[in-house]
Amino acid sequence: MERNFRALLEAQWDQQKFLCVGLDPSLEKIPEAVQRANTRETLIAFNRALIDETKDVVCAYKPNTAFYEAYGDEGWAALRETIEYVHEQASSVPVILDAKRADIGSTNEGYVTASFGHMRADAITVQPYLGSEALAPFLEQKNKGIIVLCRTSNAGSGELQDMIVDGEPLFMRVAQLVAGTWNQNNNCALVVGATYPDELRKVRAVVGDLPILIPGVGAQGGDLEETVRAGRDKNGRGFIISASRSIIYASGGPDFANAARAEAIRMNSIIAAVV
Amino acid sequence: MERNFRALLEAQWDQQKFLCVGLDPSLEKIPEAVQRANTRETLIAFNRALIDETKDVVCAYKPNTAFYEAYGDEGWAALRETIEYVHEQASSVPVILDAKRADIGSTNEGYVTASFGHMRADAITVQPYLGSEALAPFLEQKNKGIIVLCRTSNAGSGELQDMIVDGEPLFMRVAQLVAGTWNQNNNCALVVGATYPDELRKVRAVVGDLPILIPGVGAQGGDLEETVRAGRDKNGRGFIISASRSIIYASGGPDFANAARAEAIRMNSIIAAVV
Repeated sequence: MERNFRALLEAQWDQQKFLCVGLDPSLEKIPEAVQRANTRETLIAFNRALIDETKDVVCAYKPNTAFYEAYGDEGWAALRETIEYVHEQASSVPVILDAKRADIGSTNEGYVTASFGHMRADAITVQPYLGSEALAPFLEQKNKGIIVLCRTSNAGSGELQDMIVDGEPLFMRVAQLVAGTWNQNNNCALVVGATYPDELRKVRAVVGDLPILIPGVGAQGGDLEETVRAGRDKNGRGFIISASRSIIYASGGPDFANAARAEAIRMNSIIAAVV
Repeated sequence: MERNFRALLEAQWDQQKFLCVGLDPSLEKIPEAVQRANTRETLIAFNRALIDETKDVVCAYKPNTAFYEAYGDEGWAALRETIEYVHEQASSVPVILDAKRADIGSTNEGYVTASFGHMRADAITVQPYLGSEALAPFLEQKNKGIIVLCRTSNAGSGELQDMIVDGEPLFMRVAQLVAGTWNQNNNCALVVGATYPDELRKVRAVVGDLPILIPGVGAQGGDLEETVRAGRDKNGRGFIISASRSIIYASGGPDFANAARAEAIRMNSIIAAVV
């Protein structure tokens, strides 16, 4: 049976796992101990160590393409090998490619091939601005997760996302569209930043049990407990808390992977206390 | 002096060049005659032949990243080498990386490094949904072109872009924001599809001489004459007409590059007749 993102996620939630680690390596922040002969090998060595130490305490991994593209072909190869390594070592853990892609329909077919064929990701983040007709090549992927930006975690996200459309902010319209009409294949999810707990609560109120990917705790400052309260569905699940820098750089020393594990476990215990 | 996208573009307009060729190769459509030992070499051979034959009749080239990402590391390498080839063979012709990227600010730094450092593009297309604060790493690049999606050419672009905000469609708000506040470094432009000439006219009416990149003629069906009339500024310039499939696949035979040149010249003559 083909891997199904939503099923993988539900199985993780069954085990009370809600934490996603953002595998977003920057060469200059990678500890000396893991530096290798070339960029590709360094990125992979760093990610492998993190995966080895956290694979049993996370619900998903989320590499962001920008961190790999910055290193050109070598980064691109490291990204593919990182995802492959997750599949090999932790086949029950889905991989979300945080690519924030979207183009017109025929062009999106290239991104579908890239992300699901070549990269073998289980899910991808996409931009809503071109509409669902353009996103059809993504939305048709029944076994993949299509995670639509709704209210992003950045300080200036309101510039467009808070514009009022028929008495409601644009991000609420996006939430309703995705939950109401884009999710025909039960493969959609939303991105709502932890930096906006009130908005997160409002989105949850209208999207039922649609999964919400929540970045912005940790380095970006979102409060973890409040985020869980605001983001969980009526069954106390349905959310993915994503942190990157606060976990992968928990230590800058040779113990970085153990420190990442300790930070992941610390966050899990806070989440568990609320759930 | 560093290359400056807007200056390169103005110099092309001085020569009455307004046509941009989308270098969007699909392996299965590339003529037999140019098929090489591997994907990377085939993509490059196809693009080089097209560049050789069209470099004196275009104002810009626009490779779309989706077509290269679909081929993984090999595609990524082919994209970089294609841009390098344009710089070598036609240094006065700017290269627009049609990547439609956007993430939170710190992450966009990775895309800036990828597109302008590694890929050496002169301009990039970006999504507006995260707002200008997130796009700052792009907008700060004074010598690069930051081309913001406004009204895209796809059939369903109105789903979000036509939502009414304060009595005006969202795409008009985006046009006004970009022209009014995002363009502090005179490095912004907009994407408005040729498939919506009325919307193109409305956008032009409020953005002064802001450059507009106009895809959607050719294979997507936009009318070229009407597009030029609707998209030009008061000086009869300020627009970039982009076509891909109708030019690069003008012939499926060994004469594909000559056929591409002939089609580009045909389009130029229609544009010239209006301008």
